[in-house]
Amino acid sequence: MQPLTPASLNPAILNVEYAVRGELAIKAEEYRNQLKNPDHELPFDRVISSNIGNPQQKGLDQPPITFVRQIAALMEYPALATLAPTAFPSDVLARAAELQSEIGSIGAYSHSQGVPYIRHSVAKFIAERDGFTGHYAEYSDPNAIFLTAGASAGVSLLLSMLIASKNDGILIPIPQYPLYTAAIAQFEGKPIPYYLSSSTSAGWQTSVPDIREAIAKAKKEGTNPKALVVINPGNPTGSVLDRSTMDDLVKVCEEHSLVLLADEVYQDNLHARVDDPSVSFTSLKKVTHALQSPIPLISFHSTSKGVLGECGRRGGYFECTNISPEVRALIYKMVSVGLCPPLQGQIAVDTLVRPPKQGEPSYALWKEETGTIHKALASRTSTMTTRLNALPGVKCYPSPGALYLFPEITLSEKAVKAAKEKGKAADALYALELLDETGICVVPGSGFGQKEGVWHYRLTCLCPGVDEYVGKLEKFHKGWVEKYGV
Amino acid sequence: MQPLTPASLNPAILNVEYAVRGELAIKAEEYRNQLKNPDHELPFDRVISSNIGNPQQKGLDQPPITFVRQIAALMEYPALATLAPTAFPSDVLARAAELQSEIGSIGAYSHSQGVPYIRHSVAKFIAERDGFTGHYAEYSDPNAIFLTAGASAGVSLLLSMLIASKNDGILIPIPQYPLYTAAIAQFEGKPIPYYLSSSTSAGWQTSVPDIREAIAKAKKEGTNPKALVVINPGNPTGSVLDRSTMDDLVKVCEEHSLVLLADEVYQDNLHARVDDPSVSFTSLKKVTHALQSPIPLISFHSTSKGVLGECGRRGGYFECTNISPEVRALIYKMVSVGLCPPLQGQIAVDTLVRPPKQGEPSYALWKEETGTIHKALASRTSTMTTRLNALPGVKCYPSPGALYLFPEITLSEKAVKAAKEKGKAADALYALELLDETGICVVPGSGFGQKEGVWHYRLTCLCPGVDEYVGKLEKFHKGWVEKYGV
Repeated sequence: MQPLTPASLNPAILNVEYAVRGELAIKAEEYRNQLKNPDHELPFDRVISSNIGNPQQKGLDQPPITFVRQIAALMEYPALATLAPTAFPSDVLARAAELQSEIGSIGAYSHSQGVPYIRHSVAKFIAERDGFTGHYAEYSDPNAIFLTAGASAGVSLLLSMLIASKNDGILIPIPQYPLYTAAIAQFEGKPIPYYLSSSTSAGWQTSVPDIREAIAKAKKEGTNPKALVVINPGNPTGSVLDRSTMDDLVKVCEEHSLVLLADEVYQDNLHARVDDPSVSFTSLKKVTHALQSPIPLISFHSTSKGVLGECGRRGGYFECTNISPEVRALIYKMVSVGLCPPLQGQIAVDTLVRPPKQGEPSYALWKEETGTIHKALASRTSTMTTRLNALPGVKCYPSPGALYLFPEITLSEKAVKAAKEKGKAADALYALELLDETGICVVPGSGFGQKEGVWHYRLTCLCPGVDEYVGKLEKFHKGWVEKYGV
Repeated sequence: MQPLTPASLNPAILNVEYAVRGELAIKAEEYRNQLKNPDHELPFDRVISSNIGNPQQKGLDQPPITFVRQIAALMEYPALATLAPTAFPSDVLARAAELQSEIGSIGAYSHSQGVPYIRHSVAKFIAERDGFTGHYAEYSDPNAIFLTAGASAGVSLLLSMLIASKNDGILIPIPQYPLYTAAIAQFEGKPIPYYLSSSTSAGWQTSVPDIREAIAKAKKEGTNPKALVVINPGNPTGSVLDRSTMDDLVKVCEEHSLVLLADEVYQDNLHARVDDPSVSFTSLKKVTHALQSPIPLISFHSTSKGVLGECGRRGGYFECTNISPEVRALIYKMVSVGLCPPLQGQIAVDTLVRPPKQGEPSYALWKEETGTIHKALASRTSTMTTRLNALPGVKCYPSPGALYLFPEITLSEKAVKAAKEKGKAADALYALELLDETGICVVPGSGFGQKEGVWHYRLTCLCPGVDEYVGKLEKFHKGWVEKYGV
C-alpha cells in the first residue's frame, strides 16, 4: 500500500485553493529561471509578479524605509552602535537601545502574544489614529492585542477557532482576498458570499441589504453565520467604505450575533491623502466604539502593506474588541503552540506604529521616503486606471485605496470557447497568454470570485516604469482583441 | 445571544493542551512583572524560565553567534557594507553580498517554499552531514525541502494534512514534546502513545516491540495509524537512538505503511561530541537511504536549538524523502496560503548549514563561540544530572543529547493528596511550589505524558550559574521532602 498519496490526505486540504500563488505564479517562477539562461527564447526579458502585493520584489525594488532597516540592523547586531555609531542617527540609536532593554536578544522567544512593550505601542497608535483623547488603554487594551506573522497568520488562526462545525458560515465579500476561501475550506466551514456591486461612477460598493439577503439565504439553507469579513480598503477592489455603510455593518453584526473580522491591512494606502492630508482612515474599531456596540470585533493590520512593504519579515497584529478574557485565553493558548511571532516582524510593527516625529533626526528622510512611495502609488493607480479604461472591452473602476486594480474585461464567446477547450476559465486563459507574451503575472478574477459570466483580473499598481508596463498590457490586450474579438 | 463564548468555538480547540507555555509559564510571567517593582515581596530576585529551551532569554543571555548576526544585520541594512566596512570580516561581507544578489531585499516575500538558493545549501548540508559522496541533489532534492518558521510550523502543517479523519492516529513517544499532542488534538486525530522505557544504566530507550504493540492495540480499537513520530535526540528525554533501533523504526514504517516524522532539531546537541569529535549524528534520512527503504520520511530541523539558539527569528526546514511530486505540490499549496517563511529565519538557516570554514576570517571566532556553548551545555548537563541524582527520591537518567533533563521524582501519598485537594496533579504542585519559592519555572511531567503514578518534571540545562541554580533546586527539594516526605 502506498502510505502517502493525495487521496490519503485530509480531504479538506484538497479543497483549498489559493489563486494568488497558483498555476500562474508557478509558471512565472519557471520563466524567471529560464531568463537566467542568456540563450532563452522568451519574448520578454523579465518577469513582473503583479499577482502579489510585494513591492520590494526583484524587478520592482521599492526601497525599504531607512528608519525601519536601521533599527532592524541594530537589533540584529547591537555592537554596531559602538562599532559604527556614525552610521545611525541618534533617534535610531536611542530607539534600538530602548527596544533592546525591553526585549533583550531578538534571538529569544518572546511572549507568545508578542513583546508586551510593543503591544503597548500598538494600543497607543490605535487610540491616536482613532482620535481617542483619554488614556490609550481605556480605548485599546494591550492585553487584547496579538502580534502575528503577518495578518494572514491571524486570519487563519481566528477562522480555525470560529468554525466549530461544517454548518458554520463566514460572510465574505465577493470579490474577496482568496486567503478567506482558502482558510474556510481548510477548516471546513461554509463561505457565505455577499457580492460587491460596481458602477463607473461609484466604483465598488458594499451593500448592506445584500448582506442581509445573503444571511437570510444561508440560514434557509441550514448554514449558521458566525462572522462577517470586511476588507477596507478593499482587496482586490481598492474601494474605501463610507461611514454610513460602516455603521450598518456594525448593526448587522449586532442583529445576527456575528463576529466582525476587519481586514484593515491597507489602512495607510489611501491615495486621496497624498493631495489632501485631511483624508483619514476610519477604522471599524472607531465605528464600533462610537456606536457603543458590544459586537466582538477583530481588527487586522500588517507591516507588509502601507508604505513599509516589509512582506518578507512577516509582521502584523490583530486587536480584539469586546472579546472576553476567556476567549482571549484560548487564543493565547493556540498562539503559544506556535511559540511566538518572528521578532523582526514584531520590531517592524513597532516602527510601523511609532514612526519618527517631526523634529527628530530621522523625520526628514522618513517623510521623504514615505511621501515618494505614496505619491508614486497614487499616480500609477490613476495612470493605469485611465489607460486601461481606454482599451476596448475593459472597465476599470476607480481604486481610491490599497495596491490593486481589478479591471473587468469583456471576453468574447470565441475566447470563452477557446478557454473551455483547454479546460480553463476564460479569464485564466487571458492571464496565461498575458504571462506568456509579456512576462507580467496577474491573477484571474475567478481566483477572487466574480458574478457568473463576468470576467476580471487583479493586478498590483506596483511596477518599475508605468509607461513601459502599461504599454505591454495595452499591446497584449489589442492583440487578444484581434485574435478573439471583444 | 452572546456571539463569542468558549462554547461557540471549534471544540477541537478546547481540547488542545500545551504545557510548555501553560499555567506555570503564565504565573512566571506575572512574577517577572512583579519583580519590576522594587518593593516586591517575592523570595527571589529573578525568574528563570527553565520551562522552555530559549537560551538567549533575559537572565540566561547566551550570546548569539557573531557570524549569524553580522550577516543578518547586513541583510537588513546593506548600506552598512560601505558605511562601516571595517565592522565586518571579509567573508561575512562576501556572504551577505551573495545572499543579496540571490534574494534581493529581505523585505520581499520569497518563494513560498523558501529561497531556492538557500534550499540548495540545505540539500548540500544534508548530503555532507550524511557522508554522501555523489552530487548532493541525488541524495537530497532542493525541491523537496521546505523552509519554515521554526520546526513547529512544519510539524503542525504536516499533521494537519496527514490527519484525514477522526480515526487516523499518530504514533508519538511518551514522554513527548507537547506540540505533538496539541496539534493532534487541534486537527482531531488520535494520539497513539508508545512509552519509552528508562533505566539507570541505559537512560531512556525506544522499544520497537512496544511500538508494534501500540500499533496492534490501536488497530484493534479502530484507529488507523498514519505516521510515526520519532524525536532524536529526544525531547524531553535527551536520549540518542542507536543504529539498530533506527533500522527497526524504518522497518516498522514499511510494514505498516507509516509516514516517518523525524524531529531532529537537536541533531547538533550531542554532548559526547565535545570530548570526542568522532561522535556524529545519524539521521533517519541516512538510515532510510542505507536500507533503500521506500518509506515516506519527513525530517525537521530548526535554527532555534543547536548552538545557534536563534528561537526568536523562527527559522527551520523540513525535507521530504520518498514523497511524490503530487503530495509535495499539495504541501506547496498549503504553505503558499501563508505566503512565505520569515526571511530572517531563512537567512539563519543559511548560516546554520553553511558555517564559516577553516581558513576563513570568521572561522576562529565562530569555533570559539560554538565550542564555548557546546562545552558549557555538556558540563551543566553532567553537573545537574549528578547533583539531582543525589537528592532523595530523585532519579535523573543520563541525557546525552538535546537541552533537557527529565528527572523522575518520587512523590509521597501526602503530596499526591495535597495536590488533589488543590485540583492539581502531584507533579504540577511540585512545579508550582518550586516556582513560588525559587522563581525557577519547570514543566510538570504530566505535560509530556508519563506512566500512571510516576512523576517527572522537565527542566532545561540552560542556566546562568549552575551552582546557584542547582543550589536552589536542592534547597527547594529538601524543603519539599521535609514537608511531604519521600
